[in-house]
Amino acid sequence: MTFQPVPPDDSFHVFDTTLRDGAQREGINLSVADKLVIARHLDEFGVGFIEGGWPGAVPRDTEFFRRARTEIDFRHAQLVAFGATRKAGTAVQDDAQVAALLASEAPVVCLVAKSHDRHVELALRTTPAENLAMVRETVAYLRAQGRRVFVDCEHFFDGFRANPAYATEVVRAAAGAGAEVVVLCDTNGGMLPAGVHAVVSEVLAATGARLGIHAQDDTGCAVANTLAAVDAGATHVQCTANGYGERVGNANLFPVVAALELKYDRRVLPPGALREMTRISHAIAETVNLTPSTHQPYVGVSAFAHKAGLHASAIKVDPDLYQHTDPALVGNSMRMLVSDMAGRASIELKGRELGIDLGGDRELVGRVVDRVKQAELRGYSYEAADASFELLLREEAAGRPLRYFRTESWRAITEYRPDGTHAIEATVKLWAKGERMIATAEGNGPVHALDRALRVALERTHPQLAGLELVDYKARILEGAHGTQSTTRVLVTTSDGAAEWSTVGVGDNVVAASWQALDDAYAYGLLRAGVEPEGAGE
Amino acid sequence: MTFQPVPPDDSFHVFDTTLRDGAQREGINLSVADKLVIARHLDEFGVGFIEGGWPGAVPRDTEFFRRARTEIDFRHAQLVAFGATRKAGTAVQDDAQVAALLASEAPVVCLVAKSHDRHVELALRTTPAENLAMVRETVAYLRAQGRRVFVDCEHFFDGFRANPAYATEVVRAAAGAGAEVVVLCDTNGGMLPAGVHAVVSEVLAATGARLGIHAQDDTGCAVANTLAAVDAGATHVQCTANGYGERVGNANLFPVVAALELKYDRRVLPPGALREMTRISHAIAETVNLTPSTHQPYVGVSAFAHKAGLHASAIKVDPDLYQHTDPALVGNSMRMLVSDMAGRASIELKGRELGIDLGGDRELVGRVVDRVKQAELRGYSYEAADASFELLLREEAAGRPLRYFRTESWRAITEYRPDGTHAIEATVKLWAKGERMIATAEGNGPVHALDRALRVALERTHPQLAGLELVDYKARILEGAHGTQSTTRVLVTTSDGAAEWSTVGVGDNVVAASWQALDDAYAYGLLRAGVEPEGAGE
Repeated sequence: MTFQPVPPDDSFHVFDTTLRDGAQREGINLSVADKLVIARHLDEFGVGFIEGGWPGAVPRDTEFFRRARTEIDFRHAQLVAFGATRKAGTAVQDDAQVAALLASEAPVVCLVAKSHDRHVELALRTTPAENLAMVRETVAYLRAQGRRVFVDCEHFFDGFRANPAYATEVVRAAAGAGAEVVVLCDTNGGMLPAGVHAVVSEVLAATGARLGIHAQDDTGCAVANTLAAVDAGATHVQCTANGYGERVGNANLFPVVAALELKYDRRVLPPGALREMTRISHAIAETVNLTPSTHQPYVGVSAFAHKAGLHASAIKVDPDLYQHTDPALVGNSMRMLVSDMAGRASIELKGRELGIDLGGDRELVGRVVDRVKQAELRGYSYEAADASFELLLREEAAGRPLRYFRTESWRAITEYRPDGTHAIEATVKLWAKGERMIATAEGNGPVHALDRALRVALERTHPQLAGLELVDYKARILEGAHGTQSTTRVLVTTSDGAAEWSTVGVGDNVVAASWQALDDAYAYGLLRAGVEPEGAGE
Repeated sequence: MTFQPVPPDDSFHVFDTTLRDGAQREGINLSVADKLVIARHLDEFGVGFIEGGWPGAVPRDTEFFRRARTEIDFRHAQLVAFGATRKAGTAVQDDAQVAALLASEAPVVCLVAKSHDRHVELALRTTPAENLAMVRETVAYLRAQGRRVFVDCEHFFDGFRANPAYATEVVRAAAGAGAEVVVLCDTNGGMLPAGVHAVVSEVLAATGARLGIHAQDDTGCAVANTLAAVDAGATHVQCTANGYGERVGNANLFPVVAALELKYDRRVLPPGALREMTRISHAIAETVNLTPSTHQPYVGVSAFAHKAGLHASAIKVDPDLYQHTDPALVGNSMRMLVSDMAGRASIELKGRELGIDLGGDRELVGRVVDRVKQAELRGYSYEAADASFELLLREEAAGRPLRYFRTESWRAITEYRPDGTHAIEATVKLWAKGERMIATAEGNGPVHALDRALRVALERTHPQLAGLELVDYKARILEGAHGTQSTTRVLVTTSDGAAEWSTVGVGDNVVAASWQALDDAYAYGLLRAGVEPEGAGE
């Protein structure tokens, strides 16, 4: 194989460990195929290093390195194999685990080394001197084999607190043997930025080694700790996409690079890469099968969402007054939330966002404002139901309902039987395309049974419904409530495979509220699919 | 009314704004009842100040202050009313919004003031000089009426960057007029810790005012920014439970106070309060109807979860080597295996709290732990359903079910009729005191109808049920769900006029889950009323 050249500007390293440390997150279980997909996303994003796993120790990781060599044509990143220093009391050239690192053919090896004397004693069960020899010899051996070598000093900050002389000696040993970067790891994640800054400064002054930082988020400060280390002179940051990692997680790659690029004005990614950040964050979340966090800095769908009303007119004049950075720079966009403070200006902004021009028509905007206010008084909330709001807006703009069927009646029966089983059945009677449809279906609950009966009734006239799936459902009793007697609000999230949308229904019983939310969900889905609604004369 | 005294140690303020700024989070919509529940949790946690909302501007908030006066007996917190300085060009004593702050009878007022000259011009549409007069006069007026006054300087950090002299002048105006604390707000959330430290230091040196910090999390650094301000001399921190707030959110109360108590060794909460943090975090999440974040620092169920195996023996020798703090200090626990939410110690503690002595009986505690684990696997959550947990504990301690009736069958029919009306009817068949009872009732929803039928069936044998009222009801589809087809968890809150309790039910349909929660709710209510349950031989 040919090793890739060191990139032209090696002065700052963005090192991603999603595939190794990020995969430690509870609930993540990556296949080799998943890892290849994520590695491609990370390379596209432009990180300098992708730590792929621990070849030799984890069979899936060995396989990943084998396939990555031929299946990925890296444009920006170098692949990194993670592994441990040689075992105590063995010769490095006889260590099978070290041999596996070479066999992975990764151009870079990141070695984990103990730097906390108690861990040397309790976990490695060896002496401090032997641990230093293990670091020196393993680094030197891998360097002699042509590898770039980084050394992760595990539990460094705790070790430095307990025995600063020994922890510093480990850094010296690694750097002295040829490690390009010595990474100080806050493995337990207990540090705060001021402490990180102090320790990194001190170690840098004492050793002169090139230092990196690996922060865990147990105090909620991993991003800030990473930046504090950079402030103190570290030039290598280890992060994971979306902050995935053990316990609370690792330093989140996205806010770290966004801070470096946008706040420090330091170029750490290829030109244009930052604008792909939101898309790449969501794509990686989909690959690991976790819902993208709506409230993640920079990339969450709520990250630039404003409750309009109060300041809508000022936002129209100068949006920069109300956001810390231009969302387009990170591939996100501003969203106006429609709340009970909704004024004309925010409705207009929302319309523009949805591509519906309301600007010229004051009377139309007035009608929408009135309809929203009336609906919110009755318990509707459009903040979490964008699709219902868009339908409302489009219906007012069109001057007619945009619906696909008319409900004559429905009935849902939920039964608990003496034998301990449940029986649930629903019947719907609908009109669509001039025909009366009657259908009955069973389900796991009254709303599920109604949903199924509705689909059966419309399967011939609206076969597109088969492609829609209900992916989330929430119900709650509203204010002024007296238990089950009160107004219920239901939020339904529906997917057509390409997008998800949320709709709202309100009623004085949960089934009626659900029916409304379903009606909106399907109307929206069919509109998206380009199906013509029933005529205005219907 | 009598104002509460200033707490003995006023040197550091933990100021919570979950009910005001936290409620800005997309998807949160708090009823007055929700706000009262959350305020009780926050007071129990021991924050010094609870910002309840904006009386006069938001009708729900006006109502909250009215009810909180009589319905909450605050032990630690003072209630804070949020509001704006007087309108430009008006006399403060004629300002209706300022009058509403006084009418709220909150002992503390937190005034929001503009400190960024562009915002004064664009959003307030007035002059910098008039804005200063608005700050001075409103603060002085409220002080003269006997209120403690804090001033939030909105957009302070952006304002200070644009026009440091004017921003500093606003701080001086507020402090000079009698504001106890001037809070520097990073309203757009774009700051990083080093910058916060520099600005707070500079403003403190220039004005000598007592400073506070209000940080938003748009860079992922809100916790660190809050601590950086404290490092620079701020002695008042504004936070929200679980970091709820607009866009990405606010500084998360829990990691901020945990850092202050555990890392700074600074007492900012009443003794013992920190140990309740995990429970209170989860209870607030349930109240706002959001899934508690599993990866939240300190309080997430994953926060102290270790992949066992690798270091298991070293962890057994010295667990402190592998965690940055003792999880018991924050009411959380270390987890080695898949799901081990219910530890023996916490069950014993809970039993003691409920007056059920389990200490001596290892076998009984083991049975409870097993039953809780089994239930949690099936989707139960006892964090917000204390009454269901207490019933479980009492049943295991008694060695028999503590129930008042046995369900033979039930049926609920929900119907939407061609004339546009709904008809809902339920029939129940129960056994109680050896008799078979059959009853049918109508209701506004299937659960309401079942609830009424159940009461009719038992009205002769258990007349005490007439005194119970369902005051809240929430349903949620559980994770890994596919829409309406999945497991549903229902939380029901019931009141007997003197107390409220919450119960949980889980099932694959919402009505069945509701029935379980009702069953627990009534069993608990009748136990409380001293009614003898059915015999063990039943």
